[in-house]
Amino acid sequence: MNNQVVIEKYELLKSEFQKNPLSLNVTTKLAEVNSCCLQYLQECSTIDLISKVEGKEYFAFQNSSGKISRAVNKKQYLTNSGDITVFWDSIRSRSLKELSETTITNICYSTVINFCTVIDLLKTGDQKTPGTYFEYFIGHLYATHFGIPPRTQLEVLNLDMNSKLPTDFIFDLGKDKPKFHIPVKTSTRERVVQVWAHQRVLDGVYGTGRFLGLLTCLNETKLNHNTLETIEICLPDQWRIYQLFIAQLKRIYYLDLPVRYQELNSVFPKIHIKTFGSFFHEYPSLLE
Amino acid sequence: MNNQVVIEKYELLKSEFQKNPLSLNVTTKLAEVNSCCLQYLQECSTIDLISKVEGKEYFAFQNSSGKISRAVNKKQYLTNSGDITVFWDSIRSRSLKELSETTITNICYSTVINFCTVIDLLKTGDQKTPGTYFEYFIGHLYATHFGIPPRTQLEVLNLDMNSKLPTDFIFDLGKDKPKFHIPVKTSTRERVVQVWAHQRVLDGVYGTGRFLGLLTCLNETKLNHNTLETIEICLPDQWRIYQLFIAQLKRIYYLDLPVRYQELNSVFPKIHIKTFGSFFHEYPSLLE
Repeated sequence: MNNQVVIEKYELLKSEFQKNPLSLNVTTKLAEVNSCCLQYLQECSTIDLISKVEGKEYFAFQNSSGKISRAVNKKQYLTNSGDITVFWDSIRSRSLKELSETTITNICYSTVINFCTVIDLLKTGDQKTPGTYFEYFIGHLYATHFGIPPRTQLEVLNLDMNSKLPTDFIFDLGKDKPKFHIPVKTSTRERVVQVWAHQRVLDGVYGTGRFLGLLTCLNETKLNHNTLETIEICLPDQWRIYQLFIAQLKRIYYLDLPVRYQELNSVFPKIHIKTFGSFFHEYPSLLE
Repeated sequence: MNNQVVIEKYELLKSEFQKNPLSLNVTTKLAEVNSCCLQYLQECSTIDLISKVEGKEYFAFQNSSGKISRAVNKKQYLTNSGDITVFWDSIRSRSLKELSETTITNICYSTVINFCTVIDLLKTGDQKTPGTYFEYFIGHLYATHFGIPPRTQLEVLNLDMNSKLPTDFIFDLGKDKPKFHIPVKTSTRERVVQVWAHQRVLDGVYGTGRFLGLLTCLNETKLNHNTLETIEICLPDQWRIYQLFIAQLKRIYYLDLPVRYQELNSVFPKIHIKTFGSFFHEYPSLLE
């Protein structure tokens, strides 16, 4: 397969998303990018990795020149192409919640990881392209769910000051309805504090509770390419400090939920960290 | 000159700083690194850059293979080696404040930019080495000023929770005295919000006003290597939002103070953004 096809399709996705993140053309382009990725990956071999994460197993794709992709969670990676057709149709018909939480999460995970691993194999040190793709993918799913396009900056009106705050996605459901602040990150690492800081600004400017923060992430795995060991990098104690002292995020959703963050659901005060598929099922309760 | 000498001297500086950031050995190693850098730069030519910043002119160093360094502010860059000898002696004798604000700022600027430009010319895409060097340089100056070593993490004691918050430098002058929170960044860009966020955590955990935040930066210049145009990237409106809604930083010090941040000193509510040399003269007033 011509390696450039994935990049070309990705550029088309980009331009459709920028025109209208809500459009069914974006769904179509996402599906096309994924098909190209699967074609590319079919020509790759796989290699088992050493998992340092309890209860998770990983493999990586390897291309003909021996290059190795990021880690892929075995249990979440789907190979049945029937499921994925149902998934795109469900987005188009706005009926994603008819699929189970696990199905949504795993299909999203597989689609996103297909693209990320292909970029790993085609490019060197490119974190930006997977990150931007992930924003489009997640942005499109939220946009079709809410039925409105996101904004990416907010007016900060404050007496004599009139500034703009750049944000990740903001979905404003209208007067007397919730507004959603949705930062999207493939992984968080040490920069995640900016998510709580932005939430704090929104709380300060508009009033606490008006913006519901839903941080949405891919995973926290890190593969050591020399030893082939895969770990999850998590900072649960710091997250608790941020949630206590900076601002309150309503939910943190993951496509591949890290084991150590899962535990934060059960210590008081709780941080609610769930699989991304949960959003489509628990949505009504977020509005209460 | 053997290119590796600068790196070798830097490694020695690193190990001295990690042993004792307060030690006069660190002063000596900083001086030695600087001498090696000057030797390297003497063999380079300079090239004038196009300045897009009002009132500032820039040049860059160029090595024999045509590679170009980051931008250097002409007015602040000192070539008189007599000044620098006085500077190292003043650090050793704890009498830096006997030099003028401008002298301290320009010598610090020249010393730091010497190292950064040499790394630009010796390595490709290495931002970490200049950043770490800058931390050692600034950390050593504050440490010798306060007469105590910095800490780089803080206990967050909070009822049943006992966590550590990693920070940039913290100088604790003791009971009933100020504590200083000193983040050090070569430039800030979009990640700077984490500085206000950490200040907010400190205010929340220990009480507002107990930690004085002194963000210390090199500059905000960006050189376009194709057009040779130099700009300053500043986000004054966002800084005002952070200062209003996240936390209050006491001072922001620059070695090369950006023009647009200078203006924040004169709009209410003020953010105090000054040259680094000011610190050593205004220090008593920070304690009031």
